[in-house]
Amino acid sequence: MAVDTVSPWTSITPETSRRMVLGAIDAFAERGYHATTTRDIAARAGLSPAALYVHYPSKAALLAQISLVGHEAALTLVEEAFARGGDDHVARLAAVAAEFTAWHARHHRVARVVQYELAALPDDVRPAVADLRRRTEGLVADAITDGVAAGAMWVAEPRRVARAVLSLGVDVARWYDPAGRDTPEDLGALYGELAVRMVGAGPAGAATGLRASPPARTQ
Amino acid sequence: MAVDTVSPWTSITPETSRRMVLGAIDAFAERGYHATTTRDIAARAGLSPAALYVHYPSKAALLAQISLVGHEAALTLVEEAFARGGDDHVARLAAVAAEFTAWHARHHRVARVVQYELAALPDDVRPAVADLRRRTEGLVADAITDGVAAGAMWVAEPRRVARAVLSLGVDVARWYDPAGRDTPEDLGALYGELAVRMVGAGPAGAATGLRASPPARTQ
Repeated sequence: MAVDTVSPWTSITPETSRRMVLGAIDAFAERGYHATTTRDIAARAGLSPAALYVHYPSKAALLAQISLVGHEAALTLVEEAFARGGDDHVARLAAVAAEFTAWHARHHRVARVVQYELAALPDDVRPAVADLRRRTEGLVADAITDGVAAGAMWVAEPRRVARAVLSLGVDVARWYDPAGRDTPEDLGALYGELAVRMVGAGPAGAATGLRASPPARTQ
Repeated sequence: MAVDTVSPWTSITPETSRRMVLGAIDAFAERGYHATTTRDIAARAGLSPAALYVHYPSKAALLAQISLVGHEAALTLVEEAFARGGDDHVARLAAVAAEFTAWHARHHRVARVVQYELAALPDDVRPAVADLRRRTEGLVADAITDGVAAGAMWVAEPRRVARAVLSLGVDVARWYDPAGRDTPEDLGALYGELAVRMVGAGPAGAATGLRASPPARTQ
């Protein structure tokens, strides 16, 4: 079981249900939702296929839970970073982008399921997932809109740039390798700085990964 | 058949082979490689499963061709943009990012297969695909390294930022909707500007999508 998939799921009880969710995450992330059978998931959880149905009526129900819990976890991190940022618009955006990116690295397998299997979601959970996504996107757009209004950022269309900031974080789940050089926190810090630059506010952000700063601006 | 998948494949003959490739792209992009059967592909191409084997020995052979042609097409666009950019380092990076992004929007179904099914590639094509990816990444890293050396960009680690510029373009394939507001060219122009900002060189790039420029810098 990949370590990175564990932490958002510790609240699921009983332990049998948790094992099924973790088995489903591994199977969906490796082979895709449509190629995964309930038999695959049961085998990864060390259970019989019949036992799986006691806890989840279908693999769609497992996907629904993974998607909801994953989207909620990412939104919570973004909300907390947004609140912590306070009145410093640039630091707030950097913190939001950093947390969102680090989450997609730390939980890259969960994130792949969350981000790549939207089309497979059962109809009854689509509105809730869409709402969680809108709230996440809205916070990033607000962070940029507020920064522009305060004269700290320079962007004509905050929603389009917010989408790009989030998209950059999401794609980390595709290529992130925990055996590679960057920790999730390293990547988060770099992407926080890149987000600050994307809104025209660099080099005011933290300066760990980008160094070699451009000449100071006149204000 | 989605229009966006057609153009990189016009060179494939005979027409039966082309129909198979297009059927495979649709099936892989919609349901994932592992969930697609040769029967699915044959049905989408209007052929019998037996007819498919005459042209391709396996669905892995189809994936190999799609991946190679797709990676080559994206690399060619990047190479051409790099060459066109000439000595203007900032314009060159903007053009490279714009072309790469527009390709991932225009051919978003092909791009999903190219970018999301790397793990499913047969062993014998892995080295060629890895080489195409390294060359693409190398051009973007060179564009940034040259810009830094010329004093036109401010980045400590060009490879990490090059990876982010490409990652931003790749993720377009995940969410791009041809029915939405942005054309592939609009998105390319925006992402070209964002790439310029990511290397600390904004607002010197083209200024269509980001407007509301930051105050001029002292040099």
